[in-house]
Amino acid sequence: MQLQPKRLYTPGPLTTSTTVKAEQQRDLGSRDATFIETVADIRRRIVGLATSTAQAPYTAVLMQGSGTFGVESVISSVPAPQDHLLIVVNGAYGRRIVQMAQVYGISHQVLTYPEDTQPFVNDINATLGNNPAITAVVVVHCETTTGILNPLAQIAEVVNAHRRTLIVDAMSSFGGVPINVAELNITYLISSSNKCIQGVPGFSFVVANVDALRSTAGNARTLSLDLYAQWQTLEKTGQFRYTPPVQSMLAFSTALQELEAEGGVPGRAQRYQQNHATLNNALAAIGLRPYLPPSVQSHIITTYHYPDDPNFDFEGFYSRLSDRGFVIYPGKLTDADCFRIGNIGHLFPQDMTDLANAIREALGDMNVTLPGTVTTPEAN
Amino acid sequence: MQLQPKRLYTPGPLTTSTTVKAEQQRDLGSRDATFIETVADIRRRIVGLATSTAQAPYTAVLMQGSGTFGVESVISSVPAPQDHLLIVVNGAYGRRIVQMAQVYGISHQVLTYPEDTQPFVNDINATLGNNPAITAVVVVHCETTTGILNPLAQIAEVVNAHRRTLIVDAMSSFGGVPINVAELNITYLISSSNKCIQGVPGFSFVVANVDALRSTAGNARTLSLDLYAQWQTLEKTGQFRYTPPVQSMLAFSTALQELEAEGGVPGRAQRYQQNHATLNNALAAIGLRPYLPPSVQSHIITTYHYPDDPNFDFEGFYSRLSDRGFVIYPGKLTDADCFRIGNIGHLFPQDMTDLANAIREALGDMNVTLPGTVTTPEAN
Repeated sequence: MQLQPKRLYTPGPLTTSTTVKAEQQRDLGSRDATFIETVADIRRRIVGLATSTAQAPYTAVLMQGSGTFGVESVISSVPAPQDHLLIVVNGAYGRRIVQMAQVYGISHQVLTYPEDTQPFVNDINATLGNNPAITAVVVVHCETTTGILNPLAQIAEVVNAHRRTLIVDAMSSFGGVPINVAELNITYLISSSNKCIQGVPGFSFVVANVDALRSTAGNARTLSLDLYAQWQTLEKTGQFRYTPPVQSMLAFSTALQELEAEGGVPGRAQRYQQNHATLNNALAAIGLRPYLPPSVQSHIITTYHYPDDPNFDFEGFYSRLSDRGFVIYPGKLTDADCFRIGNIGHLFPQDMTDLANAIREALGDMNVTLPGTVTTPEAN
Repeated sequence: MQLQPKRLYTPGPLTTSTTVKAEQQRDLGSRDATFIETVADIRRRIVGLATSTAQAPYTAVLMQGSGTFGVESVISSVPAPQDHLLIVVNGAYGRRIVQMAQVYGISHQVLTYPEDTQPFVNDINATLGNNPAITAVVVVHCETTTGILNPLAQIAEVVNAHRRTLIVDAMSSFGGVPINVAELNITYLISSSNKCIQGVPGFSFVVANVDALRSTAGNARTLSLDLYAQWQTLEKTGQFRYTPPVQSMLAFSTALQELEAEGGVPGRAQRYQQNHATLNNALAAIGLRPYLPPSVQSHIITTYHYPDDPNFDFEGFYSRLSDRGFVIYPGKLTDADCFRIGNIGHLFPQDMTDLANAIREALGDMNVTLPGTVTTPEAN
């Protein structure tokens, strides 16, 4: 099934470099010294990306499965029976965390905002002030639902002022948006292999404050997703408790090196910003409207409204782009018909220009008229 | 970090073919039609391997993570609150299932046997007769701890006679030992991508009786490992609830085709038997003793006693073999000093001969004397 490779404009799995892809072609024993070294190196580099070593000691725990498995590992392993969570929600990934708390019967309350609105930091402040029972605040940094970037620094300031634990789902931002976990005093931050570090899917990782993590022994509600046990075994043996996705980790190791070669997170963030600006300008020129106001829009993924033309249908649009070698992402909004385009992965401004051209062609094929569109012959 | 590839004589991750490895070099959107088709094809082929279509309808559910995640998915998702499990244990993987029942507070009892002994089917029969509260029996088919093959057909007969649910951990046997899930009326069978089907790690799969699975709605004790929800979403959308390990699945798809080209499970079982016999004869000739009696030994993995010589140490032995390009597996026994050698993966009888020669050389280097060894000059 060898097909022409397509470029993925998706929020992960995403387009990876040829070298990252090639690195998967190695069989390596999961208990072999070379692999153990690779795992240790990955863990060190993740902590390095997340914080400077001069600050409070952090560790990185790798967890098999997708990003959601990593988030669930934290939510199911960290809270003690008497703990109470405040979950801040403005999208599907926040709602998923609420679902986890429900499944495990973990005491919690929710602050919900519309999907195009950042959480109000003053609400969080007031809620914490009014509820001393809240032990931890859980927030999503960049909601992949829309691409909204939530005000992490301000939220961290408030949570720290109230001396509560801060859990951050940084799935689609870590590696692509600078975050200093130690400076913000984040207790647990979760991301995954197939996001801004540009690896392939297979595992997630948790950057955890060591003191906090140590205090969670015995709190886990599962076996496989037991964050503390996973950490302990990685620390003591360098190995995983259960079979790790070896090839995905080899690819990730290369991806981490390529991130560093690009200038680390600041360098990568700059490219993603350029990708975002290039795409946004090109699509604005043909009249496609972003769902979010620019002030809250991240450079990770952008949500666009469907064109207001009865000739438009998403399936036809998607397949026309796919046939041209461009894979975009469907919408996930509860209240608006949208599609999404990821600016992340091994993509460069020229790739965004190529996509914008393909979008113009596809809409032309569909006889979709847009305010800024140069009228195509077919549309006459 | 490009190193000379080594052959893995391990129970998974194992040696995969060049074509399986190469297939990972594709970026594919996890919601794209091509990937959705691949997933559907994988699910169909797994059911085809497990059963003939003329019999009771089965389905295959894929689950992110290692094999243990798949087992935990079944143990945490299937039992209703009033259910009671009988777990049959003669090794580490059986004990792990007990651990899962404990973590979730699932009512259970255990029948334990020594690691070199098959469970007594009469005990299971009597236990079920005496305990009408037992709703399901959980057994490991081939205990990777030792390589013992448990008497699945006889156990199934007894469990069926008592009309209980049968859950089989067939992690290291499925694909390498013929099992007809429908004929044996197995309700749930679990295996993983990096075992006898010869893919890379990243996910597990559950072959489930559809009627039984349908009745488990609402029983799940986790979100990510919810077997019923995973099945429902795969059925309804063809997609995963959460990001799947795309590249691992592409590799698996190729691995399934290669299994069929080899003559399906019977063809593969024959090669593994030849591998096992070749290795066993060669090592017997130099005086290495298998831990298990031949009557209960599978052709999947063999446990060998350490040579009875003070010059032997496992670390030195392992690294001498590894330096020569042969990766073996440490022991996992509670009561004996052993190492293990896997006969599975993309290995052929010549590979087993090569390993036996390397073992003879390594032991010679270590001045280890064995009954059948030709005395090396250094040993004089």
